[in-house]
Amino acid sequence: MSTETISPDNTTALVLTEEEIFKAHEGGKLTVSSTVPLNDKRDLSIAYTPGVAEVSRAIHADPKLARTHTWAERLVVVVSDGTAVLGLGNIGASASLPVMEGKSALFKTFGDLDSIPLVLNTTDVDEIIETLVRLRPSFGAVNLEDISAPRCFELEERLIEALDCPVMHDDQHGTAVVVLAALTNAAKVTNREIENLKVVVSGAGAAGIAIAEILLAVGVKDVILLDSKGVINAERADLVADAGSVKARFAQRTNPRGVTGGPGEALTGADVFVGVSSSKLAEEHLKLMNDQSIVFALSNPDPEVLPEVARQHAAVVATGRSDFPNQINNVLAFPGIFRGALDAGARRITSEMKIAAARAIAQLAEEDLSADYIVPSPLDARVAPAVTAAVAAAVTK
Amino acid sequence: MSTETISPDNTTALVLTEEEIFKAHEGGKLTVSSTVPLNDKRDLSIAYTPGVAEVSRAIHADPKLARTHTWAERLVVVVSDGTAVLGLGNIGASASLPVMEGKSALFKTFGDLDSIPLVLNTTDVDEIIETLVRLRPSFGAVNLEDISAPRCFELEERLIEALDCPVMHDDQHGTAVVVLAALTNAAKVTNREIENLKVVVSGAGAAGIAIAEILLAVGVKDVILLDSKGVINAERADLVADAGSVKARFAQRTNPRGVTGGPGEALTGADVFVGVSSSKLAEEHLKLMNDQSIVFALSNPDPEVLPEVARQHAAVVATGRSDFPNQINNVLAFPGIFRGALDAGARRITSEMKIAAARAIAQLAEEDLSADYIVPSPLDARVAPAVTAAVAAAVTK
Repeated sequence: MSTETISPDNTTALVLTEEEIFKAHEGGKLTVSSTVPLNDKRDLSIAYTPGVAEVSRAIHADPKLARTHTWAERLVVVVSDGTAVLGLGNIGASASLPVMEGKSALFKTFGDLDSIPLVLNTTDVDEIIETLVRLRPSFGAVNLEDISAPRCFELEERLIEALDCPVMHDDQHGTAVVVLAALTNAAKVTNREIENLKVVVSGAGAAGIAIAEILLAVGVKDVILLDSKGVINAERADLVADAGSVKARFAQRTNPRGVTGGPGEALTGADVFVGVSSSKLAEEHLKLMNDQSIVFALSNPDPEVLPEVARQHAAVVATGRSDFPNQINNVLAFPGIFRGALDAGARRITSEMKIAAARAIAQLAEEDLSADYIVPSPLDARVAPAVTAAVAAAVTK
Repeated sequence: MSTETISPDNTTALVLTEEEIFKAHEGGKLTVSSTVPLNDKRDLSIAYTPGVAEVSRAIHADPKLARTHTWAERLVVVVSDGTAVLGLGNIGASASLPVMEGKSALFKTFGDLDSIPLVLNTTDVDEIIETLVRLRPSFGAVNLEDISAPRCFELEERLIEALDCPVMHDDQHGTAVVVLAALTNAAKVTNREIENLKVVVSGAGAAGIAIAEILLAVGVKDVILLDSKGVINAERADLVADAGSVKARFAQRTNPRGVTGGPGEALTGADVFVGVSSSKLAEEHLKLMNDQSIVFALSNPDPEVLPEVARQHAAVVATGRSDFPNQINNVLAFPGIFRGALDAGARRITSEMKIAAARAIAQLAEEDLSADYIVPSPLDARVAPAVTAAVAAAVTK
């Protein structure tokens, strides 16, 4: 059986067979090696006893030395409980491991950061925090991955406080950073300012909430969130009843025109549709949007609307897929964000750092900006260094 | 400042400078890499989305596939709480990390096993167990390291039950295995059977207890343990008062002649001294031993008695140091033990497997057996494969 992805012009078909996918995954996708030689007695005496005792003794006397003489300070742990894995949902820790191994491999390849996956067979937020706190001397940063909403919001917030090191849930903020970069350029291509766009975000889970948050942070005034019940509005009964929830808080911060109803009401007169849920976008709703509309249909592997359909109505179309133009791919963001944070000795990844990352990504596409090129390719070697530098520069000591 | 180790004949001086030791440790001693290419879109689609989703989906449907399609099944975590690090004592998790990184590097170099260090800033046995149980899907085996006695005995026992994967405290059993191998050959060299030797083990911590245990297991009848209070005897007041303790249990299983007193009483008429504590062995006590005595002075870096002094009285002398003959080095044991266990799919490391490892190590020195060659060199490339094969063969399904 093969997984086939065909591009619109049928010239860059990407046919993957199950056989090659499974073969590539045999034994997992990561390996650990020594960075020092271990060939003779001398080597052993330096890397292990008695030489290593000197280093341990020194760290005991001056704990700061752990930052420079162990790998921990720059080690990124990719952490998941397997509750929201890709499009597969709650498949558990063990089944999530191939994704987490892949994430660690991407951290190394794109960010030159050592990274290991730690998957947990508890989904209790207190227990996850407790586990990472106990392991704190072992790592320098945490990338949360594939952890279900709304638990992921509280988990990330509490871990940031408890661990005092860079912690980021990539499904939230990596996505948001790349969306901001893409939308900034889409606005440019259609000769508008991003702050004046009317934006509808379909999906109020990890990605949707984080996207709304970053857009508000850069001054986008009119953001509407949609969930399965419809438009997120401060008067909606379920949100009034659950006033402390993340959705309720965002109901207060978004939807300035007090729109009620569903996708049709939300998209009437909207400029931007950002899809981060599996809910399909009907063509009739697409038609309700303003001229020069911008459509980011990011649900993977099946976008909320087919790009070819969207292109009949929208000025700029993006998806999460590599076989269409304008791939919104988190790998544009997370390696450089973590690398920049660690290079600059940041204790946390701030809003300013995320916005700086988005700007750096957007800038790289500026020279060749067009409706079909609003973000650089994930394989563009300029991206990670540029994001790293921008994020490091945004770190306030 | 340099760390100098000079061999007796002054020809193989090993001068290490602090500078080179610290330089080698900069950034730590481990690195993680991808085992699959990540160079183009196709590579990303196989190793990450959408290809990886197929593997996750398959593991969710058939959990056994995690053993073959992730790295977890064969990943050895080196776990410490920093309470008994080398000769430095309780220096804590962070300061222990260089030793744990080194251990992981040795697992890779000698056993071709991927290994990562996990150091914990809790010393509570329940919390350590809980942490590893929660992380269980992330690894395939646990090497406990530098964890203080007597906590380490309970911790190891409970982890073996709780994790249902190979778990071994190397300071206990790795040491015991190599001591058994060395003593087997020392007996041979001095034309005796190991079972008939009168053995005194100085030190009733992790190593001492495990050495006593393995010697009893192979039929050595007369084993005496010494701790700081003297000979471990079932009538000793502190052991009567703490009858459930590991020492008390071993008081029941050792010292068949009911010896009481201190080192002098223990060593009178003894054949073997195994030193695994920092207590010095006085020459006057050494003289009380039988002819053809065997002295293993394993305290590192300062042996209980200088080899040149011991050689004046003993037939066979071993230490833990690389600059003297007969180095008792755990690296002869732990890589092959874990590799053999994992290769054979063992759920635990049994006494039989440990004894098989000791036999394999001893056999490799048989051809050139002499008083100065009772164990192979740690760098002898035949060791790990031989131990692996012997241990795997000893696994009963």
